[in-house]
Amino acid sequence: MRASELFVRTLREAPAEAEAPSHKLLVRAGYIRKIMAGVYALLPLGIRTLQRVQRIVEEEMNAAGAQEVRLPAVLPSEPWKQSGRWAAYGDEMFRLKDRSGRDLSLGPTHEEFFAEIVKGEFSSYRDLPVNLYQVQWKYRDELRPRGGVIRAREFLMKDAYTFDRDVDGLRVAYQNMVEAYKKVFTRCGLTFRMVEADPGLIGGDVNHEFMAPADVGEDLFVFCPNCDYAANVEAASTRRPEESPQDDPEALQLVHTPNRAGIQDVVELLGRPADEMLKCMLYDVGGTPTAVLVPGDREINESKLARVLAPAPVRMFTDNDFAAYGLPKGYVGPQSLPEEVTIVADHSVRARSNWVSGAGQPDYHATGVNAARDFTVDRWEDVSRVREGDPCPRCGSPLQVSRAIEVGHCFQLGTRYSVAMKATFVDEDGTEQPYVMGSYGIGVSRIIAAVAEQWNDDAGLKWPKVLAPFDAVVIPTNMDHQAVVDAAERLYGSLRKRGVDVVIDDRDASAGVKFADADLIGYPLQVVIGKRGIESGNVDLKARATGERTQAPLDAAPEAAIGILESVP
Amino acid sequence: MRASELFVRTLREAPAEAEAPSHKLLVRAGYIRKIMAGVYALLPLGIRTLQRVQRIVEEEMNAAGAQEVRLPAVLPSEPWKQSGRWAAYGDEMFRLKDRSGRDLSLGPTHEEFFAEIVKGEFSSYRDLPVNLYQVQWKYRDELRPRGGVIRAREFLMKDAYTFDRDVDGLRVAYQNMVEAYKKVFTRCGLTFRMVEADPGLIGGDVNHEFMAPADVGEDLFVFCPNCDYAANVEAASTRRPEESPQDDPEALQLVHTPNRAGIQDVVELLGRPADEMLKCMLYDVGGTPTAVLVPGDREINESKLARVLAPAPVRMFTDNDFAAYGLPKGYVGPQSLPEEVTIVADHSVRARSNWVSGAGQPDYHATGVNAARDFTVDRWEDVSRVREGDPCPRCGSPLQVSRAIEVGHCFQLGTRYSVAMKATFVDEDGTEQPYVMGSYGIGVSRIIAAVAEQWNDDAGLKWPKVLAPFDAVVIPTNMDHQAVVDAAERLYGSLRKRGVDVVIDDRDASAGVKFADADLIGYPLQVVIGKRGIESGNVDLKARATGERTQAPLDAAPEAAIGILESVP
Repeated sequence: MRASELFVRTLREAPAEAEAPSHKLLVRAGYIRKIMAGVYALLPLGIRTLQRVQRIVEEEMNAAGAQEVRLPAVLPSEPWKQSGRWAAYGDEMFRLKDRSGRDLSLGPTHEEFFAEIVKGEFSSYRDLPVNLYQVQWKYRDELRPRGGVIRAREFLMKDAYTFDRDVDGLRVAYQNMVEAYKKVFTRCGLTFRMVEADPGLIGGDVNHEFMAPADVGEDLFVFCPNCDYAANVEAASTRRPEESPQDDPEALQLVHTPNRAGIQDVVELLGRPADEMLKCMLYDVGGTPTAVLVPGDREINESKLARVLAPAPVRMFTDNDFAAYGLPKGYVGPQSLPEEVTIVADHSVRARSNWVSGAGQPDYHATGVNAARDFTVDRWEDVSRVREGDPCPRCGSPLQVSRAIEVGHCFQLGTRYSVAMKATFVDEDGTEQPYVMGSYGIGVSRIIAAVAEQWNDDAGLKWPKVLAPFDAVVIPTNMDHQAVVDAAERLYGSLRKRGVDVVIDDRDASAGVKFADADLIGYPLQVVIGKRGIESGNVDLKARATGERTQAPLDAAPEAAIGILESVP
Repeated sequence: MRASELFVRTLREAPAEAEAPSHKLLVRAGYIRKIMAGVYALLPLGIRTLQRVQRIVEEEMNAAGAQEVRLPAVLPSEPWKQSGRWAAYGDEMFRLKDRSGRDLSLGPTHEEFFAEIVKGEFSSYRDLPVNLYQVQWKYRDELRPRGGVIRAREFLMKDAYTFDRDVDGLRVAYQNMVEAYKKVFTRCGLTFRMVEADPGLIGGDVNHEFMAPADVGEDLFVFCPNCDYAANVEAASTRRPEESPQDDPEALQLVHTPNRAGIQDVVELLGRPADEMLKCMLYDVGGTPTAVLVPGDREINESKLARVLAPAPVRMFTDNDFAAYGLPKGYVGPQSLPEEVTIVADHSVRARSNWVSGAGQPDYHATGVNAARDFTVDRWEDVSRVREGDPCPRCGSPLQVSRAIEVGHCFQLGTRYSVAMKATFVDEDGTEQPYVMGSYGIGVSRIIAAVAEQWNDDAGLKWPKVLAPFDAVVIPTNMDHQAVVDAAERLYGSLRKRGVDVVIDDRDASAGVKFADADLIGYPLQVVIGKRGIESGNVDLKARATGERTQAPLDAAPEAAIGILESVP
């Protein structure tokens, strides 16, 4: 490919809205262009990199025994209604009507439709297991699209679905897909962690996320540097504190704390650290008022709370609720609650005594508040958000927290969708049984951004060679110098003949512009031919990812180039 | 691939609604499944064949110097509004709103958006020409989706757009794409004709369709078996009749034809052939009443008429129009029209004299109606629909008519969209000029149906090997016979090792079922291993497309198979 013909213009400035390095660089280097919020065009460099990711995904899916199919993106509403997701999806699902007024959606995912397709074809236990996947543009009307292709409203996804006779079969299928996922992300050059994810409200569903650490990631996960524990913060636990010897209980005392409804305000007024405060949050749990206690320096993890209290729906108290129970918002303490309020305490509340808490009346707090003596905990549960430094639930080492981009997600769905869709097979004993399903997603277009986040420097992108849009660029530094141009053209032809996917930067531009563009675009190898080189009979080679520079004699340049390409990541 | 694992179930019966052979066979053989009207899922066989078509298209586009990009399928409305197509598209465009209430569409095509993208990147004459394409699922809410993937509402299309400085550049780009299209359709095994297409209302736009003859096709084209003339019926012309010696004009006479408003009624009553009748149709042409004359056995081609009368809009007279002008519907003749009516006659009206026509009063016709003496033709034009047997406009040979599926379309758009989108480049003289555009479409998913229409027999599909989902099937006829199974497995392994994309039909099914499925699915080569073959040391090979059967010794079977695969279409 000739740079003079390649449809690309690099930009000096990133769009003002871009914050993530990958977003800035993918726009500046001419991979993507915004069409509207969360919707991007892929220019030639972008589609080449995307196709390389897609090929890796397809190869590993095929190797894992998954078979490729394609369901439509425009979908009828009836199956969504049958599963309950037509209502549950809310604004995130793009909806439309056809000319006859029929309700349609753009598919954000396809569990219901794969269940329908499989039930139409494979209805005997003898047909199972089956593993199907598609690589397809998906649609989600994100409230806050961001980061370019990190969170887009139209994005390329690989979604796979497994169908088994029983849970044992599902576990085998799941493990098989997990291994395939590890191969995909490894081949793409990603540093990643497989982490336990929030099992969701229905409970019992095993699922894991694949997290690519990145400062701009929207997800947080915790991991143990000592053992293999890793989990999304929504799902993470910490070791329960041991029942330690507690301080002698002090007497309960009221202190005047006018206009100090927040923990931080009280900390400042009383000069006591936040971990001595007892945070008491009120929720309506299916109609039952419920107080949730965590130390003042901790947050409640509402995902875990919802799971603990499921199936009852959990919502935070509103001002109206406070008024209805006569409770003073900001000054509630567990020792001053009406009988009817259930008290749920995080395990971390066991770790100390003599708490400071709301006094149950406006503008007053209480000190010396002690469990058992002053209030009764109805349930001790794991409902707090894990923090950096908390002990690992497996080995006790201090946990670390990392920000990350979620690039994959595997779910053991069980029979949730097959029961809803009446998707059954005839089992060996003649009974109708729902398929036991798994679903597995990879954000194919998002991988581009995740890799770009992990592989860049100030000068631009540093693609691993499997994902780079081209393998190499040949740069003649002076287009006026015929010997330079001729040597560059010969080298270009020679590399092409040897199967290298190479660009010659034949633009009438300065060497500086060409070097800057080559660094920005991120060709894994730059081969530079200049006047001085022609005189000395040498070319300069630079591996973009490592920055390593070497020289090679002009006539040995193709072999040297191929050698470097074989050695770089 | 093992047939026991392949996600496919063949069906004995086609869906009741299926009429086209390709539709019936693609469903029965398990390539496609309907999700709703005009929207299909592709099962593994279907996606494999689609990907093979797509690869051919991409290879030829790349070879032609087109660069692949991808614009979104979900599109903002503003560019459509700017070009006027937001209104013009009507119900065929799927429309939706996002969560903020913004108008969006699903892209039926992308001229406006490519103009926008190119103007954002390439704004100097030095950057041109440029040729971009994408392979993308497109959305059209067809009034009557039909034929499975022949006319679907979600379909895979390759659309390309060229941008040139001037019309000469466009012509070069167009010819380049036309040649690439011929290569695509030839490689796909299609019999096709490139035909002149209706230039559309704006006039002057050269465009061509690529037609794959098929009995179920929705399009008709005429072609000359003697020269290379071929055109869509909407665009086709015939040779103008010579000014032949005419019969002596008879006197104009009225005949009573009560309740005989139709041509056929009058033919029956008077016992004179339809070609002696003068059909006189009335139109409102931008407010001017206009009579259009063709012989009674011919149809008016309203596409040609609209073009001839452009830019004025043409619509057929309503009952109200007849009433307003005091004209008797069904009994109008050119000799009895008010002055203000313009008369447009097809050239074929020159060919005879003494017409029978409406008398201008209810229940009466006139005989002996003659041009010049009884009425004045304001314009002689080519406005009739060409018929089988009409003389070729180039060489005079009798034209033939064929039914076909349109698989490709090339347009010389000119500056229609670039002017509307203000998509300009700076020319050598410093002036801003609109890009001169071409657009080029291929129905990628439709090609599957077109090839299936041309390559089938009563037993099933007969894919050319480039499009078949697999190259070959190895059929052990008796799974109980260990030597048969072992020999089949060895052969399967051996063919795989040699790079043949092969299926082994290891299902516990009868030989008859396996043969029928192999014929239905259309594997180009069947290799059959049975008990008798094991005893005699031979396998049977059948080329599906030709039906040719041969035998080969068991140990030479892989070479024999590869030899046949090389020789079949």
